[in-house]
Amino acid sequence: MRIRLRIAYDGTEYVGFQSQTNGVAVQDVLNAALSDLFQREVRTLGASRTDTGVHAEGNVAVFDVDTRIEPSKIAFALNARLPEDIRIVGSDRVPDDFHPRFQNTVKTYEYRILNRAHADPLTRRTEIHYYYHLDENAMNAACSYLLGEHDFRAFCSAGFSSKTTVRTIYQASVTRTGDRLVFSITGSGFLYNMVRIIAGTLIEIGSGKYPPGRMEEILKSCDRKMAGPTAVARGLVLMEIRYPDYE
Amino acid sequence: MRIRLRIAYDGTEYVGFQSQTNGVAVQDVLNAALSDLFQREVRTLGASRTDTGVHAEGNVAVFDVDTRIEPSKIAFALNARLPEDIRIVGSDRVPDDFHPRFQNTVKTYEYRILNRAHADPLTRRTEIHYYYHLDENAMNAACSYLLGEHDFRAFCSAGFSSKTTVRTIYQASVTRTGDRLVFSITGSGFLYNMVRIIAGTLIEIGSGKYPPGRMEEILKSCDRKMAGPTAVARGLVLMEIRYPDYE
Repeated sequence: MRIRLRIAYDGTEYVGFQSQTNGVAVQDVLNAALSDLFQREVRTLGASRTDTGVHAEGNVAVFDVDTRIEPSKIAFALNARLPEDIRIVGSDRVPDDFHPRFQNTVKTYEYRILNRAHADPLTRRTEIHYYYHLDENAMNAACSYLLGEHDFRAFCSAGFSSKTTVRTIYQASVTRTGDRLVFSITGSGFLYNMVRIIAGTLIEIGSGKYPPGRMEEILKSCDRKMAGPTAVARGLVLMEIRYPDYE
Repeated sequence: MRIRLRIAYDGTEYVGFQSQTNGVAVQDVLNAALSDLFQREVRTLGASRTDTGVHAEGNVAVFDVDTRIEPSKIAFALNARLPEDIRIVGSDRVPDDFHPRFQNTVKTYEYRILNRAHADPLTRRTEIHYYYHLDENAMNAACSYLLGEHDFRAFCSAGFSSKTTVRTIYQASVTRTGDRLVFSITGSGFLYNMVRIIAGTLIEIGSGKYPPGRMEEILKSCDRKMAGPTAVARGLVLMEIRYPDYE
């Protein structure tokens, strides 16, 4: 049977979710824990690669297994075999043809910014520190241009190979709570570095370098050089992946 | 002149704030950074020792120095010399007779609990994970017995040497946000391990082992054996120390 795992991880020590040749990936550690649990080589298929240093509250991976362990209990058995910076936060059975990538998905990311004079050591691993005041209203206004179906080529790093650069954004907003800003975005999928480039652009807009309408100009240009810098990885968290066809 | 520092730190790697013989304390690292900045040996006087593994958003320390650096800029100069898990979040000048401990203080602590099936790797350093459901209403009801002036001897670990075990609690409450519970407590001072023993007792009450009125019985008993276990250090954060006489 096919088991789906929801995976949370502190990405600080990993080269991303997907196995690479240049370092330890979350998937390497996960596959080893699964192989230990089921006493045979188990390989997972992941939903989202995530870049080096990016975090997750709910990435998704599947694997096939014959076992008498109840699907929901697999999370507990795995957590006993995983390091503290990786946790399985849920496990369930899915249909045998369930593929974590090649179907309708709705992904939500957060990008977290501490906006005050000095950084906070308690949250330093999962947010960036930005000294100058950011205007969350301007950032929110800029977010509105992202909603709907657009060609997001301007927000895509080189090296991306996909049939199309068109994606649909269902929700995008910036919320301030005291000194903390959270940029939240939900969409049908994201190009390489897309959320981080949008975050970098929003910081330029929030700091007053450009007006909110800049976001629309960049989108229409389809030119990566128009957009802001790629914001650093530590502020990004993959929050959730939903599969509307299986709910 | 006397300079006051507000200090935030991730206590995971330290034996507490105050210098000890059994490991590296936050104060050791802070004194070294100050000595490097001012090119002479500088020694700080801290407000709260904090236990091994306990965190702070706003501990306080003072030191004396002759310098032309503007007091508020000292925080920036120090942060350039400190590791990422320690940040000075504010610096100002105080009167020469300002002592961080021997005067009126109002301290606020938080104890953070993740109450769900699986732990969260992104917040694992600053919260504990508790699997069984906790009833925040029962915990809040128990908190009400703590308010006011009481002898808190029952919530004090052995080895505490103070003239009196009477303290005044101004505020104590438990707030749930989704799966997260935060126990917040503000008082005139706290005995050794007092917040962690109260947190351990609140967890017993929240899990249904005892009713809220147990808190009053424990208080009146003045007997440490009546109270719950000392909750683990990683969940505790010293949020703020205020000095009403200097505001």
